[in-house]
Amino acid sequence: MYNLLKGKKGIIFGALDENSIAWKTAERVHQEGGSFVLTNAPIAMRMGNLNDLAEKTGAEIIPADATNEEDLANLVSKSMEILGGKIDFVLHSIGMSVNVRKGRHYTDEKYDFTAKGWDVSALSFHKVMQSLYKADAMNEWGSIVALTYMAAQRTFPDYNDMADNKAYLESVARSFGYFFGTEKKVRVNTISQSPTPTTAGTGVKGFDSFINYAEKMSPLGNASAQDCADYTVSLFSDLTRKVTMQNLFHDGGFSNVGVSQEIIDQF
Amino acid sequence: MYNLLKGKKGIIFGALDENSIAWKTAERVHQEGGSFVLTNAPIAMRMGNLNDLAEKTGAEIIPADATNEEDLANLVSKSMEILGGKIDFVLHSIGMSVNVRKGRHYTDEKYDFTAKGWDVSALSFHKVMQSLYKADAMNEWGSIVALTYMAAQRTFPDYNDMADNKAYLESVARSFGYFFGTEKKVRVNTISQSPTPTTAGTGVKGFDSFINYAEKMSPLGNASAQDCADYTVSLFSDLTRKVTMQNLFHDGGFSNVGVSQEIIDQF
Amino acid sequence: MYNLLKGKKGIIFGALDENSIAWKTAERVHQEGGSFVLTNAPIAMRMGNLNDLAEKTGAEIIPADATNEEDLANLVSKSMEILGGKIDFVLHSIGMSVNVRKGRHYTDEKYDFTAKGWDVSALSFHKVMQSLYKADAMNEWGSIVALTYMAAQRTFPDYNDMADNKAYLESVARSFGYFFGTEKKVRVNTISQSPTPTTAGTGVKGFDSFINYAEKMSPLGNASAQDCADYTVSLFSDLTRKVTMQNLFHDGGFSNVGVSQEIIDQF
Amino acid sequence: MYNLLKGKKGIIFGALDENSIAWKTAERVHQEGGSFVLTNAPIAMRMGNLNDLAEKTGAEIIPADATNEEDLANLVSKSMEILGGKIDFVLHSIGMSVNVRKGRHYTDEKYDFTAKGWDVSALSFHKVMQSLYKADAMNEWGSIVALTYMAAQRTFPDYNDMADNKAYLESVARSFGYFFGTEKKVRVNTISQSPTPTTAGTGVKGFDSFINYAEKMSPLGNASAQDCADYTVSLFSDLTRKVTMQNLFHDGGFSNVGVSQEIIDQF
Repeated sequence: MYNLLKGKKGIIFGALDENSIAWKTAERVHQEGGSFVLTNAPIAMRMGNLNDLAEKTGAEIIPADATNEEDLANLVSKSMEILGGKIDFVLHSIGMSVNVRKGRHYTDEKYDFTAKGWDVSALSFHKVMQSLYKADAMNEWGSIVALTYMAAQRTFPDYNDMADNKAYLESVARSFGYFFGTEKKVRVNTISQSPTPTTAGTGVKGFDSFINYAEKMSPLGNASAQDCADYTVSLFSDLTRKVTMQNLFHDGGFSNVGVSQEIIDQF
Repeated sequence: MYNLLKGKKGIIFGALDENSIAWKTAERVHQEGGSFVLTNAPIAMRMGNLNDLAEKTGAEIIPADATNEEDLANLVSKSMEILGGKIDFVLHSIGMSVNVRKGRHYTDEKYDFTAKGWDVSALSFHKVMQSLYKADAMNEWGSIVALTYMAAQRTFPDYNDMADNKAYLESVARSFGYFFGTEKKVRVNTISQSPTPTTAGTGVKGFDSFINYAEKMSPLGNASAQDCADYTVSLFSDLTRKVTMQNLFHDGGFSNVGVSQEIIDQF
Repeated sequence: MYNLLKGKKGIIFGALDENSIAWKTAERVHQEGGSFVLTNAPIAMRMGNLNDLAEKTGAEIIPADATNEEDLANLVSKSMEILGGKIDFVLHSIGMSVNVRKGRHYTDEKYDFTAKGWDVSALSFHKVMQSLYKADAMNEWGSIVALTYMAAQRTFPDYNDMADNKAYLESVARSFGYFFGTEKKVRVNTISQSPTPTTAGTGVKGFDSFINYAEKMSPLGNASAQDCADYTVSLFSDLTRKVTMQNLFHDGGFSNVGVSQEIIDQF
Repeated sequence: MYNLLKGKKGIIFGALDENSIAWKTAERVHQEGGSFVLTNAPIAMRMGNLNDLAEKTGAEIIPADATNEEDLANLVSKSMEILGGKIDFVLHSIGMSVNVRKGRHYTDEKYDFTAKGWDVSALSFHKVMQSLYKADAMNEWGSIVALTYMAAQRTFPDYNDMADNKAYLESVARSFGYFFGTEKKVRVNTISQSPTPTTAGTGVKGFDSFINYAEKMSPLGNASAQDCADYTVSLFSDLTRKVTMQNLFHDGGFSNVGVSQEIIDQF
């Protein structure tokens, strides 16, 4: 629509189906003139329909387990080959808690599950960045974004160990953002998004009630996956070059509302 | 460059001369297809050269003292007349401390000065929004931005009572943002900008040392007035519709650096 | 009970009646061996029964309008005379919004009211500290505490301009805390207290619903005035000498809960 | 000195030698009338002189690897046996980064090291609390404290992956604090302490320069291990019953200083 990303090249992690934020982002980036490689874990790819997205956006797919350093090294080098140069933007939209999936309460974690979820949801962001950094794969003034959730700051009872994983992820954004900024002039940020009815999100217990509550608490309503795609485009563009190491709330105002009139009226 | 603001109408407060952030923003908004009214206090207009900017951007000027409700009511109604409809964006870039100007230390404030600085720097933002709100002057999904500084969160010894004014200003953004969001679907945010060598900024004692320090602390270096204009354009655009009630650091990473290697190497 | 404040001398602002946090604090400080002067505005004193408290705690009363520099200078010098030396602790528990009292909505402020409320609720804290600072009235390792509310960070629709006043107050704590720390080794903090059913608080519209909501959101329940007195004693004691320039949430966990199970169960 | 902890029983993790914060805390708790079990990892116990502390404070020692659930279950049940009832306070003072020890830069992490450090430094806090929770070992109004560092919020180049571990740890405090509060009326907080010259801390590269820098940035100077022991006592006491899920800066003001005069004078 605006050619904001004309000539920019990137990698997009985590598109599963048309409900995914990463899917919507890929579509918007394509509209803005950006080209990219799509990637997801082999297992996730079997569940979704990533080929449709690839076709629609002229993108190639390179499967990669984001917890596996070799996969990531291969992804980075292949992406540069395919795209014909260094990378300008990266979206990390990956998260999964085995404790949640297996119905383990936060006070009854199985620690093998916890470690696996941490690796997939949080450490993977470090691994992605370390792969890019070691391969010197990012262009100056490139932009790396990961998606997160406000449970990293405040407790939501059903969010379980994903809260702690998101806190780790946000810290990785700051820590790696320091070095990526100083050494390579690359920015790293996280978007703290409204609860979003993606295929992954809807698996969480009580998710519908929660979406409803968040909608009533947010002066502008919840931000949708499409809204998030728009916002991510702005963070990939040259308009936001000096924004780095930030956790950016994209939530219709939820994060700074103590209580809304609509909620208080029920008491 | 991108037509991001095509058809959008706004009011820009606080352009003084070509070093002003508001000046740079006006130029960038114009490039992006936005039209606007320029305004400043009568006294500030005598010091700067706002006519040049008006000519360059095809804007009209309406003088207004931002602490005066009548001036603001007039500004709002005239702006809608001139622009031919409701407002989509507003930039508030106004700040002045009499205590700083008169060399009064923070522990030796003259409270008449304090009250005057608070009215100009902080309450004026409420007055501007109340004027817009009462006149029902904002379009849905409009965007209001005020400039602020990190002294609202952490103490910088020479920033004096402007720190407290900025804290008040940021609170007004949240408080009014709640009602503007709920009632009118308008977003309100503040940009917490790097120290910037504007004509106003350079008057502060020790400003050069401080700019130098901030540059060394910021992984991407200080954000310039031009960078801020770019960022403000993104916040006026439709890409950021669900961002509201936020204080957004635009500082090359300064705000989330504990200490940089360059600084620590001196100890 | 513990002799935590044995030999310490202070000034306590804002006790009105037995529901006041300042009243409860005075009682607890007395129990812990501290001695103090009680003060309040002449008008507030007529409404309450401060004499009872003074008698009970062996304190003298010095009326002072906390917005009046002369009154404060007199209060400080008289207090040192009465207590026989410099001051170790100060409690600022003062707040009032004329807009709230007169039923003016946040989007319809009368700015004379706003200025008056700001002076009483926010600037008065600067005035108190400047009076102490100029008179060199604080002992090293003294402790100054002001009461605040989380509306300074997040919007509560009925809290009106008190939100902005509290943001200013908290900034004053940091700004003055810097100089009081560096120059005099005195600490300055704010306690961000649960909504508390004081005589002042209960005047706010919708206060009962809100207390109820906060109770359900707080894992430990709302902190009471008595709890706050305990906490304030800990901040006046020598156990917390290196805590300064902080805003300390004392709220049963409310501030870091996104939503509680009890609330979400209603959706 | 004050009998603040008379009759209270606890477990103190992580005392190594007389420089340890946990060591100083044990001594202070003993002075205040509390009784406790001391614990550390078998390997750490061989390096330190925990027996001296045990003797001095009348405490028993139960070795436990805080990453091992069986060890923790044993520790909790034995502690209740020895102390004759449920637990009132717990101090978690445990942290270690293999990447730091092995000299791996943050941009060159070895992920086995990262996982080990995360388990020891961050997940161990969850394991400790889950052990206590499952055994229903905490008394109502008990207090659990873990030590952390501001690198969880802002980047310090040499702090490496400990920054991310501390962010995780602080999130665990909030997440578990929610359930411990709601279900058991137990509070959970973290103290974000000044850099402290403990035997562990001094191993970090550039630590001396950093301590020096922090001293110059902090209006009250760095908080010492002894100061931290005092502060921890206040958090274990009944004076702070409604403080929970908080990260409490104990740093002489460092966290809220943008830059100090002493630092800026060097530029």
